[in-house]
Amino acid sequence: MDTQSDLKASDLADPRRARQAMRTGAWTRPTAALAPGHVQANLVMLPRDWALDFLLFCQRNPKPCPLLVASEPGAVGLPGWADDLDLRTDLSGYRVFEDGACVADVDDITPLWRDDLVTFALGCSFSFEQAMLDADLEVRHHVHGRNVPMYRTSIDCAPAGRFSGKMVVSMRPFSPADAIRAIQVTTRFPAVHGAPVHLGFPEQIGISDFSRADFGDDPVIHEGELPVFWACGVTPQVVLEEARPPFCITHRPGHMLVTDRSNLSLAA
Amino acid sequence: MDTQSDLKASDLADPRRARQAMRTGAWTRPTAALAPGHVQANLVMLPRDWALDFLLFCQRNPKPCPLLVASEPGAVGLPGWADDLDLRTDLSGYRVFEDGACVADVDDITPLWRDDLVTFALGCSFSFEQAMLDADLEVRHHVHGRNVPMYRTSIDCAPAGRFSGKMVVSMRPFSPADAIRAIQVTTRFPAVHGAPVHLGFPEQIGISDFSRADFGDDPVIHEGELPVFWACGVTPQVVLEEARPPFCITHRPGHMLVTDRSNLSLAA
Repeated sequence: MDTQSDLKASDLADPRRARQAMRTGAWTRPTAALAPGHVQANLVMLPRDWALDFLLFCQRNPKPCPLLVASEPGAVGLPGWADDLDLRTDLSGYRVFEDGACVADVDDITPLWRDDLVTFALGCSFSFEQAMLDADLEVRHHVHGRNVPMYRTSIDCAPAGRFSGKMVVSMRPFSPADAIRAIQVTTRFPAVHGAPVHLGFPEQIGISDFSRADFGDDPVIHEGELPVFWACGVTPQVVLEEARPPFCITHRPGHMLVTDRSNLSLAA
Repeated sequence: MDTQSDLKASDLADPRRARQAMRTGAWTRPTAALAPGHVQANLVMLPRDWALDFLLFCQRNPKPCPLLVASEPGAVGLPGWADDLDLRTDLSGYRVFEDGACVADVDDITPLWRDDLVTFALGCSFSFEQAMLDADLEVRHHVHGRNVPMYRTSIDCAPAGRFSGKMVVSMRPFSPADAIRAIQVTTRFPAVHGAPVHLGFPEQIGISDFSRADFGDDPVIHEGELPVFWACGVTPQVVLEEARPPFCITHRPGHMLVTDRSNLSLAA
């Protein structure tokens, strides 16, 4: 078997092979560089009696919670999204929550599996960032080797059952002409957050100190650029922590579900 | 025959009937309210030996000069665009230029017609403004009963033969969320100027005094709104005046060619 030190991301360009390496423990690191061009997804697993509320929350908040697919209770596969998938082992990192608090980071949830767990796979900005790069747009935080700046906002999500909260946004700065292009490009990808929710005036959406991000790294923005804000997948994480379901499993940040679908297949 | 005083715009909802009323002189006023939902076009007629340069200029500058259709030399119809059309009589106003200078406004160019004239019909912002209204966006200058503010910019058009010059833009102010929506909506209409060319910083495109429009009326913009700039059909007019072809006929401002095509038929 491959050992961790031997494997390079470039060895795992095929999504099925990437999942196998994570299943066997040969790859335990983040997934950003794996299976380029393929959809990677945020993962949320909830007990059946919390699943309807969450599904409704996603349906009512498609920009921060763009649901790609939800499983049957207890199912360990996502037909049509990832061949030969075992949701209990095929991520390189999981995060376990009890009553809204993180209690463990693990790389295999087989011992924790329950037949009432419903799995939700949510679109992630990796897909639309690839579309930006393909359109010759500069993604600033890539250039600086940073994480994208993310902010809590005053924008209310539409509540659903026990879930409610404010939207979290990610920010990418662009020249005006590139901002227009970025809006066009991401509009084609409603399944992965889609078009921005705001641009230009951070204070209008409740961001009082733009220079300090609430999550990720602080922004790098130049004179004459516009800050452009997209709904962010951290939103459901925050909402989940506040709703405090008794049990929940998510991906560990950066350790996404790698699917077989191409990013371009999501284009509207 | 109808007389001018009897006819209301609402009597001319059918584009063919609108053209007939203009042909007979029963309607001599601007066309904005006629044949709602149908494409209206800017018109440029040039002698054959200037037509290739202008056609190249349109091809290289599709945002300010979105060419819908060009005629054969001497043809008085535009097949597929307007049934029973006579380009010499069917506009309610024409403007005649000699050596780049306006020499006459007339409502019938039959006496001036030449067999070497090539007619260009260019998309106009009436079409995308309807798309904005249909998307529940407020078009500010409509609300105030004004003309859209237009500005000369420092943006160079791509030259073609004897034609060159700077782009003229029109400006509509929007809240950030509505600006995003307006970009999405107009992106679908590349045949009528398409997406904006700029937003946010007028000085970046050479507009030194935003409060004073170069054409149309001065802007009305509120705190927290973004000025959004689209390429404007005044661009080819300015370029034509500077190139000074010996002979040229255009529509009189506001007196457009009324076609049979629906605005929505232009949506990409």
